[in-house]
Amino acid sequence: MFSSEVQFGHAGACANQASETAVAKNLALKEAGAFVPKSFDELGDVIKSVYDDLVGKGVIVPAMEVPPPTVPMDYSWARELGLIRKPASFMTSICDERGQELIYAGMPITEVFKSEMGMGGTLGLLWFQRRLPSYASKFIEMCLMVTADHGPAVSGAHNTIVCARAGKDLISCLTSGLLTIGDRFGGALDAAAKQFSKAFDSGMLPMEFVNKMKKEGNLIMGIGHRVKSINNPDMRVQILKDFVKKTFPSTQLLDYAMDVEKITTAKKPNLILNVDGFIGVAFVDLLRNCGGFTRDEADEFVEIGALNGIFVLGRSMGFIGHYLDQKRLKQGLYRHPWDDISYVLPEHMSM
Amino acid sequence: MFSSEVQFGHAGACANQASETAVAKNLALKEAGAFVPKSFDELGDVIKSVYDDLVGKGVIVPAMEVPPPTVPMDYSWARELGLIRKPASFMTSICDERGQELIYAGMPITEVFKSEMGMGGTLGLLWFQRRLPSYASKFIEMCLMVTADHGPAVSGAHNTIVCARAGKDLISCLTSGLLTIGDRFGGALDAAAKQFSKAFDSGMLPMEFVNKMKKEGNLIMGIGHRVKSINNPDMRVQILKDFVKKTFPSTQLLDYAMDVEKITTAKKPNLILNVDGFIGVAFVDLLRNCGGFTRDEADEFVEIGALNGIFVLGRSMGFIGHYLDQKRLKQGLYRHPWDDISYVLPEHMSM
Amino acid sequence: MFSSEVQFGHAGACANQASETAVAKNLALKEAGAFVPKSFDELGDVIKSVYDDLVGKGVIVPAMEVPPPTVPMDYSWARELGLIRKPASFMTSICDERGQELIYAGMPITEVFKSEMGMGGTLGLLWFQRRLPSYASKFIEMCLMVTADHGPAVSGAHNTIVCARAGKDLISCLTSGLLTIGDRFGGALDAAAKQFSKAFDSGMLPMEFVNKMKKEGNLIMGIGHRVKSINNPDMRVQILKDFVKKTFPSTQLLDYAMDVEKITTAKKPNLILNVDGFIGVAFVDLLRNCGGFTRDEADEFVEIGALNGIFVLGRSMGFIGHYLDQKRLKQGLYRHPWDDISYVLPEHMSM
Amino acid sequence: MFSSEVQFGHAGACANQASETAVAKNLALKEAGAFVPKSFDELGDVIKSVYDDLVGKGVIVPAMEVPPPTVPMDYSWARELGLIRKPASFMTSICDERGQELIYAGMPITEVFKSEMGMGGTLGLLWFQRRLPSYASKFIEMCLMVTADHGPAVSGAHNTIVCARAGKDLISCLTSGLLTIGDRFGGALDAAAKQFSKAFDSGMLPMEFVNKMKKEGNLIMGIGHRVKSINNPDMRVQILKDFVKKTFPSTQLLDYAMDVEKITTAKKPNLILNVDGFIGVAFVDLLRNCGGFTRDEADEFVEIGALNGIFVLGRSMGFIGHYLDQKRLKQGLYRHPWDDISYVLPEHMSM
Repeated sequence: MFSSEVQFGHAGACANQASETAVAKNLALKEAGAFVPKSFDELGDVIKSVYDDLVGKGVIVPAMEVPPPTVPMDYSWARELGLIRKPASFMTSICDERGQELIYAGMPITEVFKSEMGMGGTLGLLWFQRRLPSYASKFIEMCLMVTADHGPAVSGAHNTIVCARAGKDLISCLTSGLLTIGDRFGGALDAAAKQFSKAFDSGMLPMEFVNKMKKEGNLIMGIGHRVKSINNPDMRVQILKDFVKKTFPSTQLLDYAMDVEKITTAKKPNLILNVDGFIGVAFVDLLRNCGGFTRDEADEFVEIGALNGIFVLGRSMGFIGHYLDQKRLKQGLYRHPWDDISYVLPEHMSM
Repeated sequence: MFSSEVQFGHAGACANQASETAVAKNLALKEAGAFVPKSFDELGDVIKSVYDDLVGKGVIVPAMEVPPPTVPMDYSWARELGLIRKPASFMTSICDERGQELIYAGMPITEVFKSEMGMGGTLGLLWFQRRLPSYASKFIEMCLMVTADHGPAVSGAHNTIVCARAGKDLISCLTSGLLTIGDRFGGALDAAAKQFSKAFDSGMLPMEFVNKMKKEGNLIMGIGHRVKSINNPDMRVQILKDFVKKTFPSTQLLDYAMDVEKITTAKKPNLILNVDGFIGVAFVDLLRNCGGFTRDEADEFVEIGALNGIFVLGRSMGFIGHYLDQKRLKQGLYRHPWDDISYVLPEHMSM
Repeated sequence: MFSSEVQFGHAGACANQASETAVAKNLALKEAGAFVPKSFDELGDVIKSVYDDLVGKGVIVPAMEVPPPTVPMDYSWARELGLIRKPASFMTSICDERGQELIYAGMPITEVFKSEMGMGGTLGLLWFQRRLPSYASKFIEMCLMVTADHGPAVSGAHNTIVCARAGKDLISCLTSGLLTIGDRFGGALDAAAKQFSKAFDSGMLPMEFVNKMKKEGNLIMGIGHRVKSINNPDMRVQILKDFVKKTFPSTQLLDYAMDVEKITTAKKPNLILNVDGFIGVAFVDLLRNCGGFTRDEADEFVEIGALNGIFVLGRSMGFIGHYLDQKRLKQGLYRHPWDDISYVLPEHMSM
Repeated sequence: MFSSEVQFGHAGACANQASETAVAKNLALKEAGAFVPKSFDELGDVIKSVYDDLVGKGVIVPAMEVPPPTVPMDYSWARELGLIRKPASFMTSICDERGQELIYAGMPITEVFKSEMGMGGTLGLLWFQRRLPSYASKFIEMCLMVTADHGPAVSGAHNTIVCARAGKDLISCLTSGLLTIGDRFGGALDAAAKQFSKAFDSGMLPMEFVNKMKKEGNLIMGIGHRVKSINNPDMRVQILKDFVKKTFPSTQLLDYAMDVEKITTAKKPNLILNVDGFIGVAFVDLLRNCGGFTRDEADEFVEIGALNGIFVLGRSMGFIGHYLDQKRLKQGLYRHPWDDISYVLPEHMSM
């Protein structure tokens, strides 16, 4: 970058006048009493001679040499050499993505496609670590299709829509809606599965079950419909029932639930086994009888929420649909109307 | 409930002695100066005579009769009579649950089942308000299967697992995981669709696109794989590509992306069109060319996040799977190890 | 916009040649058999004469006049006139934002500021609809400060951080973290409050309580610390205890818990009443004895989660802090290391 | 547990008759051809003699001795010995919970209490890693109090309430509400801070700023109120302004915003600087001028969302309040009324 002579790197590059050159500086330092080597090469020698001189004069008293600490080995290297064993913090059994092929519960993804197991079969691998029979996969898909949506008025769709109208992204809207799912909204599948299983497993007769629930003042979950009745059957249940009856190896719990339905509809025609109740009991029959699970495994999956998962996954389709719908319809910020809110003041605060 | 004579209802019922009877009370009141009718039937007459007497004496000065205010009509009744019109606060177009049959985008649910459109077709109705051709439904299902999971190490599965190990319910765990999805995790489908569409629509040649991205220091989204390469192709992409090439009426954007891949893999063999990139561009081809959408509609769906929805819905399957897995494996509360955290203190706070 | 003669508005404006003029068109229509008025003014007359003619010929048979339906009245107008009564769907008692001044539980916001009740007092209004005594407000603030953070390793902070490193926004990160709060993480305050209250209210002696818990194999929530002990006390608890003892009108439950602590620390010195346990029992003492609540109200607030709210609100401060910290430190996408995950395959799936 | 003679541990314990004793078994084995040592002590000798015999006969051909693999060392042990170095995956600077005392940004929690820095000061440590001056802590608390709630009708409170009425827990309800916060709901503080800062920093005069915004058809964020006006001022703003003017070392941006307000209120009296706008600009003044931050640091905190955090934390108080309120009022499942929803069907789907 420059033509003139260079000393000591870029310091020289900046020397604009004689007093700024290395030579001038070295001279000034020497005059001021500093030890200045002739060139950089002699720096070490000068340091040594000054040191020896100071030691000789007793100015410096040499300390004992301390052996330098070993430099610790890199963990990843030590691990590769097999010198180190570190227990894993996490355990997983549904998916292995480390190799050449993505593997779902032991089955390579290409195998998943070749075997034409579809969405239902994929879900079977990831949720149950099983290759489910094809009727089971089909049934799971039918359940997802039936639960996919139930309009914009229910808690979950409503919150998704309100969030979408607040301008938020897909994930925020979906989760704001999903968080409303629980006992009161969407919990009927699970509750029906558990109530009917418990009654059936305890050996109670259908009539005993109905009487017990009535006596305790409890609703039978999965029984009852707003408009549908024994004379005006719910076609969704009809379609699912036809499929289940034709393909499942056993439908013990469903049969039990249908006996209960006979008793309740005799009292009131709309006390039918509704679609939530149907899915709940049929799912238990599926897990218990498809051959892939012990009875304990089947019950554990219901216990930890597999049926709830079906509702959540199915309805996610609807919630995302509502989100896209509101965006497409360009709906603005929602504010609940004041005249639909009753502002009350606790007595003790009235002023 | 009692045998003796009754006067004035339950007051008499409680009269235990003479002084508590109606007769005794009436007498006492009369003696104290009250106007006491002989029986309840004469109450009105006595009130009138006392009133007229007081008016006559000038004690009471009658005020003008005010017509009583009309009792407001019940809103729901007025609405049913057609007297009132209230604009709706919400608009929806994906699902109508008011009638005898649940209706998805105009199609009764029984029709949905009869037409064997499956999960993909149901999604088509709810997200796009269209009856998609069957190859489109199939392709959507394939995308959901491929995106269903990618192991426990990624942000979303990790947070789902940590939440499950904190003992939380399915919804909380799923949402804690979903909330990590964004540009960095799961956003490649969307980003690839948008980048490639923009380049293609602007008439840029593949080489120009690659050069432009390089010059601007931007990554091409959807290009590149950790282990897969042109010589060791990703079988997932292969399977999807075979399907798309065989069934889609046009694959303009995919062809464009594959031309880009030719250029990038010439530079480095692992710069292939990966599965995210593939789904992104093929989905655009689907929306643009399946015949159901105008070009603007197709682009709007990508814009508002339909592709993001595919990833979110597909991966929800995996997250729920991880949740069930952790519950089944009975994993305890996770606490990140201290030795994997570097605690730093801003300089200005060192004490 | 144009110079030539105009007939019939913009139609004339576009007439470029004779055959496009109104005159030419009228003529052509007349020749084709149409009834053409001389000018727009005569249009009505021509319609009437044609109509009368057709009626005369019997081509048209006039129908009975039907009175037009009443146009329904606008709901908001009808409501203002008092014609309509609509029950409110929502009830609220914590805040009224309709008037000139924002009102928290009956107290105008300016009053809130003037009375110097601070954050704690504001929280008292919104959560308990009470103007709490100032020591209560102060204690609430102290609890929020103590629970504000406990490092990055716990479930909630960890998920917030992982989400922040996935590039997500503040709300997503905060909620991803909050969703991990439950029995195992953050639930000790609530659990301690409930366990100690139940034991105390049932009249059990401290020793009986300790023995019962031991016999049933249950942990006493809020007792025990990793490093702190009776000889190395937790200064947080000390500070809080000094404040509570000095200001609370009664500390019955705290005294009971300290008697329990005497028994447990006699067994093992670190089985102290920890900070979670302390806040839990002291909060119960506050609600029960501050004079603002009946005993049932006090217990209901613990039942529905007020103490949980304290932890959630306090820790939100920490989670938001962690979010800002990660953004400032520009931390990249986190992926859990493979060597810390044990990939297991259920036996039935081994191939 | 038993009185008779014992041989070989519990095997003998179970021997009920002669044939089940060790002696009888040994005899039977020997007769069947097994090599049976006289006692356990001779087992090794017998094994060796049988082995040597088989080697001698050539039945067993001894293989080369392979040195056993080193047993890998335990990671945590190796780390304690300093043999291994593992880079930390996480970095944190807000809180250190590893030692005897919880430390917020370098300050022990006891110090935090002793210094009486309150909620605002604690927040300053956790969010900004600074010990803020006391007026700054006070101002932060005032902002939290003002933003704490704004009634049940807004998106966030509404979703919290709908979720509470679906029976969900505190965390789910709070997060369902928080997820609606964004540009349209709650985003005004942030937006005002950014808009005004940008205009001020670019040297635009207030009039130029107003004209530019008008010309571009953009709203000025933080300007305008539904009912309040220059003649009917918002008392919240008044109180905050008095405090800020009295305590802040400089209020450059606030002064700029008030000059803008002069121009806008001249046009329309309700175009005042509202409470969102006020907090936005005053917060920028605080960060820029309190002495703790460089200008870049101050701007970075606004950029990454510190102001958004103030709104989120403040309003969390309100959302939790609404949750507790709904629980206390025992409100049931909400379902949005059908007559408030307009069900539309895209034309292409009409059947």
